[in-house]
Amino acid sequence: MTDTIEQIGELELLERLKRFMPIGQIDDDTAQIQSSKKELLINTDVLVEGVHFSELTTSAHDVGWKAITSNISDLASSGSKEIIGYTIGLVIPPNTTWIWIQEFYEGMKDAMEHFGGKLLGGDCSKGKEKVISITAFGELGGIRLHRANAMTGDYLVSSGVHGLSRLGLSLLKSEKVINKIKLGKNLKERAILAHKRPMPPVKALHALEACKPIELPWRAAGTDSSDGLINAIRNICESSNCQAVIHKKSIPKDKDWPTGNMWDEWCLNGGEDYKLILSLPEKWAKNFIKEIKSAKIIGSIKEGSPKVFWDDSSEINLNSKYKFQHF
Amino acid sequence: MTDTIEQIGELELLERLKRFMPIGQIDDDTAQIQSSKKELLINTDVLVEGVHFSELTTSAHDVGWKAITSNISDLASSGSKEIIGYTIGLVIPPNTTWIWIQEFYEGMKDAMEHFGGKLLGGDCSKGKEKVISITAFGELGGIRLHRANAMTGDYLVSSGVHGLSRLGLSLLKSEKVINKIKLGKNLKERAILAHKRPMPPVKALHALEACKPIELPWRAAGTDSSDGLINAIRNICESSNCQAVIHKKSIPKDKDWPTGNMWDEWCLNGGEDYKLILSLPEKWAKNFIKEIKSAKIIGSIKEGSPKVFWDDSSEINLNSKYKFQHF
Repeated sequence: MTDTIEQIGELELLERLKRFMPIGQIDDDTAQIQSSKKELLINTDVLVEGVHFSELTTSAHDVGWKAITSNISDLASSGSKEIIGYTIGLVIPPNTTWIWIQEFYEGMKDAMEHFGGKLLGGDCSKGKEKVISITAFGELGGIRLHRANAMTGDYLVSSGVHGLSRLGLSLLKSEKVINKIKLGKNLKERAILAHKRPMPPVKALHALEACKPIELPWRAAGTDSSDGLINAIRNICESSNCQAVIHKKSIPKDKDWPTGNMWDEWCLNGGEDYKLILSLPEKWAKNFIKEIKSAKIIGSIKEGSPKVFWDDSSEINLNSKYKFQHF
Repeated sequence: MTDTIEQIGELELLERLKRFMPIGQIDDDTAQIQSSKKELLINTDVLVEGVHFSELTTSAHDVGWKAITSNISDLASSGSKEIIGYTIGLVIPPNTTWIWIQEFYEGMKDAMEHFGGKLLGGDCSKGKEKVISITAFGELGGIRLHRANAMTGDYLVSSGVHGLSRLGLSLLKSEKVINKIKLGKNLKERAILAHKRPMPPVKALHALEACKPIELPWRAAGTDSSDGLINAIRNICESSNCQAVIHKKSIPKDKDWPTGNMWDEWCLNGGEDYKLILSLPEKWAKNFIKEIKSAKIIGSIKEGSPKVFWDDSSEINLNSKYKFQHF
């Protein structure tokens, strides 16, 4: 079980990987999707070792879970309720153990059992560092969420709290910065779980469709907060050419979240919280927060060139040292 | 133009990459494909610097071309004539220059203009080495080619000659092994072009459909020879649970191809020739080689546990030192 890929060889590796593929998909160069009357949504997400995950903080099983769920989060935040499947582009160093690969595929399988879809195919190569590029396919449901759909007067809504994943990372890395403050055991557990096993906002999308006031059209702006809450809001503002005003007292934090600048920053720019960020007409927004108890109205949309403000009129600057970065 | 990604920054990089994306696809987390009555074929291929390409032998433009065409080759060899689009998972070291990225995207664009489809979306991250994971989507045409469709009595057909890409690599690397023999200038040019700008077997697929004898069913086995000619034949044998017999005098070589063990090996196991390898009823095979002048009948299919033989009954062993390997 501690054999490396180099030791077991390429042919044996491919043979073992076939166990994770549905029958019929392994004997061809390509995978096949049945024709459908519904539109297809597609998303590609890349995870790189040392950038998106590290051996120190993330088990192979967690990496597999995250690879699938980060894609589902993008699909859900565009309006896909039914996941069809995934292809994987996998790069692994030759000294990777088979047990790592197996646990990684089991993590993906766990997430698929939870959220739907199956592995359709993929490609594998050696490389200096682990890279996982997943492409996910889903059927569009009742509403197509676009970032560009926000309108003046809309309420901004978050489907859940932010910052937990960043705190979880800090706990897993035993960062000194959190030694100064005593954190509740439950908060720590929630934070580590949020980081290791993120839950994409599929329930929130279902609720959004279910609670639309009948007199309103199917128009809503949406995105996920995988790269941070403020980043998501800024993306909506840029695509919709509007401004957002965030209520300082409505930052969507965990009930036990400490106070302080760093904690606010983690909440605003921590990243990887995978919540649905929506811009909705008032009535729809109010219905939504009744349906999803973790959801919160956090601000509103107004006219103007793309910027994000606090409700005291100060601008929220993204160029924070805590900003979520992949470069 | 010689600025690196680190110098221009992540936001500016994403801004510049948007130029290569169709309008409407850049403002959302996901890409969208219209519903269709046709089945969808999907393929994911990974290219890793130092494994599949090297700065020494492959320009950024060529890498882009190859990233797209290797996917099209897989789609065509499964039966897709209409390419819809692509998503890209891209990993680049921070010291990569913008000019490299730009030329890489232009190479992809060139290939798309040649073979159809457009860039639908993707994801980008830093990493230690360049990794390109492309997922391509195509509509299934008139025939679905499966590796598992070969039948006893079929003729084995190659849509073109093999070995050129491997020779091209050798020329680009100035390998000593080719100094011993004088090669025609035209052969050298063909070889370098085959390596730098491979042409997926799209015409061959069109011809295959056009020349089917009316009395025969739409049953044919097919795959591409991207990982070598013998590898492709072996894959058909394994999936179809049959044996192949290759005529030694019918190895599909370039007309100016030198003789010798190494040259035979390059032809059989060189890889990256991207030809269509088919198993067809006799009459269809004979029609096909009339349609495609580079095509050749190279052997036949017989009963037995999956093995590949020469027509003198000696077995062809894949474990050659020249075998195309990614691990």
